[in-house]
Amino acid sequence: MTEPFDAVDVIRAKRDGERLSQGQIDWVVDAYTRGVVADEQMSALAMAILLNGMDRPEIARWTAAMIASGERMDFAGLSRPTADKHSTGGVGDKITLPLAPLVAAFGVAVPQLSGRGLGHTGGTLDKLESIPGWRAALGNDEMHRQLEDVGAVICQAGSGLAPADRKLYALRDTTGTVEAIPLIASSIMSKKIAEGTGALVLDVKVGSGAFMKDGASARELAQTMVELGTDAGVRTVALLTDMSTPLGLTAGNALEVRESVEVLSGGGPRDVVDLTVALAVEMLAGAGRPHGEDDVRAALADGRAMDVWRAMIRAQDGDPDAPLPTARETHTITAPESGVLTHLDALAVGVAAWRLGAGRARKEDDVQAAAGVEMHAKPGDVVVHGQPLLTLHTDTPERFGRAVEALEGATRVVDAGLHAERGPVVLDRIGD
Amino acid sequence: MTEPFDAVDVIRAKRDGERLSQGQIDWVVDAYTRGVVADEQMSALAMAILLNGMDRPEIARWTAAMIASGERMDFAGLSRPTADKHSTGGVGDKITLPLAPLVAAFGVAVPQLSGRGLGHTGGTLDKLESIPGWRAALGNDEMHRQLEDVGAVICQAGSGLAPADRKLYALRDTTGTVEAIPLIASSIMSKKIAEGTGALVLDVKVGSGAFMKDGASARELAQTMVELGTDAGVRTVALLTDMSTPLGLTAGNALEVRESVEVLSGGGPRDVVDLTVALAVEMLAGAGRPHGEDDVRAALADGRAMDVWRAMIRAQDGDPDAPLPTARETHTITAPESGVLTHLDALAVGVAAWRLGAGRARKEDDVQAAAGVEMHAKPGDVVVHGQPLLTLHTDTPERFGRAVEALEGATRVVDAGLHAERGPVVLDRIGD
Repeated sequence: MTEPFDAVDVIRAKRDGERLSQGQIDWVVDAYTRGVVADEQMSALAMAILLNGMDRPEIARWTAAMIASGERMDFAGLSRPTADKHSTGGVGDKITLPLAPLVAAFGVAVPQLSGRGLGHTGGTLDKLESIPGWRAALGNDEMHRQLEDVGAVICQAGSGLAPADRKLYALRDTTGTVEAIPLIASSIMSKKIAEGTGALVLDVKVGSGAFMKDGASARELAQTMVELGTDAGVRTVALLTDMSTPLGLTAGNALEVRESVEVLSGGGPRDVVDLTVALAVEMLAGAGRPHGEDDVRAALADGRAMDVWRAMIRAQDGDPDAPLPTARETHTITAPESGVLTHLDALAVGVAAWRLGAGRARKEDDVQAAAGVEMHAKPGDVVVHGQPLLTLHTDTPERFGRAVEALEGATRVVDAGLHAERGPVVLDRIGD
Repeated sequence: MTEPFDAVDVIRAKRDGERLSQGQIDWVVDAYTRGVVADEQMSALAMAILLNGMDRPEIARWTAAMIASGERMDFAGLSRPTADKHSTGGVGDKITLPLAPLVAAFGVAVPQLSGRGLGHTGGTLDKLESIPGWRAALGNDEMHRQLEDVGAVICQAGSGLAPADRKLYALRDTTGTVEAIPLIASSIMSKKIAEGTGALVLDVKVGSGAFMKDGASARELAQTMVELGTDAGVRTVALLTDMSTPLGLTAGNALEVRESVEVLSGGGPRDVVDLTVALAVEMLAGAGRPHGEDDVRAALADGRAMDVWRAMIRAQDGDPDAPLPTARETHTITAPESGVLTHLDALAVGVAAWRLGAGRARKEDDVQAAAGVEMHAKPGDVVVHGQPLLTLHTDTPERFGRAVEALEGATRVVDAGLHAERGPVVLDRIGD
């Protein structure tokens, strides 16, 4: 077959700061998926995109081309409207766990196709797999049935959605081209649009533990994704949320499930509850079932969300009553002095949890269900000299050393009369 | 073996506009040669270098790392001093053919390791191979003996010099990363420095038929290469020379050999003679055997250079007296009106010669010895309506159509009283 374009011409165009045509974009994404455009050509193009950018129509076309590389799902046959959430990833971000059943409790279908963790941010599937019996892989029929019957599904994304994205993502990971907003936005949105949700809420993290370290980049990413979703007919809003410190008091798989169950029982750390509720309000509005914050909080307090959680775990062969695994060894770090904890760095906690065994360095690695970091105070809290500040959990105590190293300088206690305020978790909202 | 660096860190550093350290450069070039750094990683790095640049110490280190990837030649044992010339490539650029024997006629050894043509610029080896019996491949001993006995060698570069460059060059060719001055300069200079010449003259072409279309880029490339050579202890100068119109009156393999023999016989087109003499004066000065322009011209007029040519061709099994191949078919393009030829585009002539069979589209292709373009006038000449302007030569007349297409708009005849001046071929000189 004769190819209508030449890869070098496409690379040169972007290298020289030109706009790529619709035909060039369609071809290069398709030809890369077919293997006609080689990895070394796509990585050069990705670097040129990273450094020279793409404008809004280019990003939209790139996203459409990635969607066209695979199958699309369709939830139109469900009796419930659908709403989905995507987080750009953070430390202690277990929000999907309480959020999906909470939103489903209001009659909305929540299909959460999730992934595993790589590096210092955790993966939702890794967390749920600490529940005895729970299984991540569902067939399409099973998934539809569970959405209809229970309302919420958290499962592994099949390989049929946007295969171009899977191939490109793996390439970007090894070629220093991950941090390109057009490629990040199209990667996320191609999968979410192909998934066929009616409404989408994006949780775009900003801060040390987030992919986007500064507000301007996070805002640009959020804005780009909201435009892509809206243009594709998905009601999309984004919340910019704080990831300078971990979410909640736990980072690690079973530890985070435990905390999520606390939230579903009407308790749990304030930031986790606040963010869960804020996202639920947005998802319900997007799905055309608007409810105020108080209504939503009530569904956590009165057990309706917990009922859906239990049904959801059971539907995927998990036992919601089984005890969660606990680590063989713990190590406690205490407060060096009395005062106010002003700083607890998200990235440092994420790296420590990862080194303790909660995350993986390579895709093939296993994770420890019980490993992670438990926090006993958050920024703004008063602590007393010698009190436990962090508890490290692992089955392999030889890992404590490097985890403690990661935490050096991660906390700051200021012995002052002033009382530090804890900032809100939701920083801004982007969308109509 | 544990690697001291991570490819993604090196790519990110250059992507983010940082300087690469000496350790990073040494490692990435070596690891790429070993296959530890993958093609897709090197192409992303090459794109980042193209867009973000490298400073002088970085380029010098990159060049040194490429030299270190292979063997170095050594001409210190010769009784003659050595001088070499490198051209960045142009249309009708047969200068190496008369130049090497001319310089050797003054007692200087000229080791010209040359290549084959790809695309619209011809290759020196392709030209010489139109001489019956001539052979491009010489062993190291043979080459040394010929340099000692004859003084001039034009032969194929062995694969042992800068293997990192060979691998990187092939990669750049398919990934839109050829046009990076730091990479062009280090590619050329790594081979020339590894070759072990004592003096080097660079012929940096500028104009439509050249790699560098504008004077500023050509000057930057020339300056960079002169600095690299000088820093490595090679006496290096560069001439910026005109490539807006072809050199001489022929473009094609046997056609250019014929014209070179005319120059060696004391005749030939003025621009070819001027450039040959200018480069010879520089090479002789660099080799410590300074001679003025008149001395050098005398060696063309009195047959001394021709004697070396004949000895050089014979030493490589060629027959300098054998008739050169001629094309089976010719096609003439005539002047559309009377006036002054103001424009004869180098790129168009180069593409036409290539399409007639003088060049190759892929490395594996064969070339036609007799194919090419013969010019009957050069810019500044007066032409008369209907006189032959160009004669196209090929063994495969079905190629005439696309060659004529390439030449559309390539010539301009202005019917005016004013007499256009032909500009000088040497535009500038860079070096001490």
